[in-house]
Amino acid sequence: MKTVKTILEVRNQVQAWKKEGYSIALVPTMGYLHEGHASLIKRAASENEKVVVSIFVNPIQFGPGEDLDSYPRDLDRDTILCENAGANLIFTPEVSEMYYVDALTTVSVNGLTNGLCGAKRPGHFDGVCTVVSKLFNIVLPDKAYFGEKDAQQLAVIKRMAHDLNFPIEIIGCPIVREEDGLAKSSRNNYLSSKERQAALILHKSLTKGKELLSAGEKSAKLLKQIIKNELESEVLAKIDYIEVVDALSLTTIDIVDKPILVAIAVYIGKTRLIDNFIWESK
Amino acid sequence: MKTVKTILEVRNQVQAWKKEGYSIALVPTMGYLHEGHASLIKRAASENEKVVVSIFVNPIQFGPGEDLDSYPRDLDRDTILCENAGANLIFTPEVSEMYYVDALTTVSVNGLTNGLCGAKRPGHFDGVCTVVSKLFNIVLPDKAYFGEKDAQQLAVIKRMAHDLNFPIEIIGCPIVREEDGLAKSSRNNYLSSKERQAALILHKSLTKGKELLSAGEKSAKLLKQIIKNELESEVLAKIDYIEVVDALSLTTIDIVDKPILVAIAVYIGKTRLIDNFIWESK
Repeated sequence: MKTVKTILEVRNQVQAWKKEGYSIALVPTMGYLHEGHASLIKRAASENEKVVVSIFVNPIQFGPGEDLDSYPRDLDRDTILCENAGANLIFTPEVSEMYYVDALTTVSVNGLTNGLCGAKRPGHFDGVCTVVSKLFNIVLPDKAYFGEKDAQQLAVIKRMAHDLNFPIEIIGCPIVREEDGLAKSSRNNYLSSKERQAALILHKSLTKGKELLSAGEKSAKLLKQIIKNELESEVLAKIDYIEVVDALSLTTIDIVDKPILVAIAVYIGKTRLIDNFIWESK
Repeated sequence: MKTVKTILEVRNQVQAWKKEGYSIALVPTMGYLHEGHASLIKRAASENEKVVVSIFVNPIQFGPGEDLDSYPRDLDRDTILCENAGANLIFTPEVSEMYYVDALTTVSVNGLTNGLCGAKRPGHFDGVCTVVSKLFNIVLPDKAYFGEKDAQQLAVIKRMAHDLNFPIEIIGCPIVREEDGLAKSSRNNYLSSKERQAALILHKSLTKGKELLSAGEKSAKLLKQIIKNELESEVLAKIDYIEVVDALSLTTIDIVDKPILVAIAVYIGKTRLIDNFIWESK
């Protein structure tokens, strides 16, 4: 496995692979990789002959006051994880390699980004779409892999790829959890042990919601209330949002009569964590 | 030469060509082709093994009240011109093939689109960038050709391709003029014979401007005034804008001490025409 820092090196390597007829996968990440990322890379390696993992903490998807500067980084650890999971190339550019000082172009997906994290993090998804477009054009993969934990991101990227005719299949992969249910996240690293314990409330509250839906409840309002009650039982938790939306359009729904996305964002201390599940109505 | 209407047909043809190792050119047009377009296709054919011409009147780059519905169309004539100029494939999709009813994605180049036509036609360049991104992803050309007559469009597309790392070389081709100096344009078709005569004032006024610069004038204000005086001498002409801007950043300048773009938009009757020249300071 090779690690490169320039666009030119990626292009040369991918071009050589394409000449050999190899299929190419891209797994875009911000590094500080965990088993969630490993599952993406393994899936990519099982479905493609060559896997490129990008590791790039993308400044333009962070808002003012967010954790850009403190976002954890550990390339040595990441390299081992990538190697073990079956990656063939790591692309880890400097910010100056990705953004010219005078860059002026933005890719936006409207509508889908109005609610959920899009409402709470203005500009976030423009930053995501712009960097992912760039990575698509740099790597030119056949398939690209994203985690379902960032459910809105996955929906937005799928829509962008579809709308702009990127010749790339976008594949979502299931959330990977710790044994106790906490969704794997690079940001879990911020948690003190007390907060780590408190963070279980995200998964617990969603499990309560699922139970309610299993019992036949159709009211989105009641569903949100149950999740809210559960989250509020944890004193270290501060709710950022609880949303019940159409799984495709991400628009708010009142009655659960089609596939829905139930998504939450919760501050545990200063750390903002997200979790979600998709519910397919019977 | 083949004419196809679906994205799938373009992709299949281009893929077959790429397998043979052929280089691919794209010439995006809105049809009703003239010698300006022919010059782009000929240049593309001289530098690439296969040339794709897209003919698509892109609705999202027209504003309310603009000439989307009346924009001239003549595919039979266009086909002959493409064939004679050396094209290998015409891609002429229906609107429904290019835009899903629920398309939500926009590509924007900020800054560069604030002035000139961007100021007069809000949303125009978002529409251009979005459709060109789509065409780039559909055709996957090595090189794409645009006319210098749409100087701002050329600057915007170059910037977009650069910012988003499209692996495509953007090539600008010189304005082609009628014998009497009028820049070739599909919209010249709208002009009555009286208006056609009046339209000469665009090129005449720019020629006056060039003469002033040749004589050593450095004041952008005076340059604009001379062009304005000339344009106002034609009663059928109504000035939309006269701009003197930095040729790269398209920002307004006061003193001519670097390469500049001198661009005008003028209504002749109801028809809006544009013309321009680049001036490299000595």
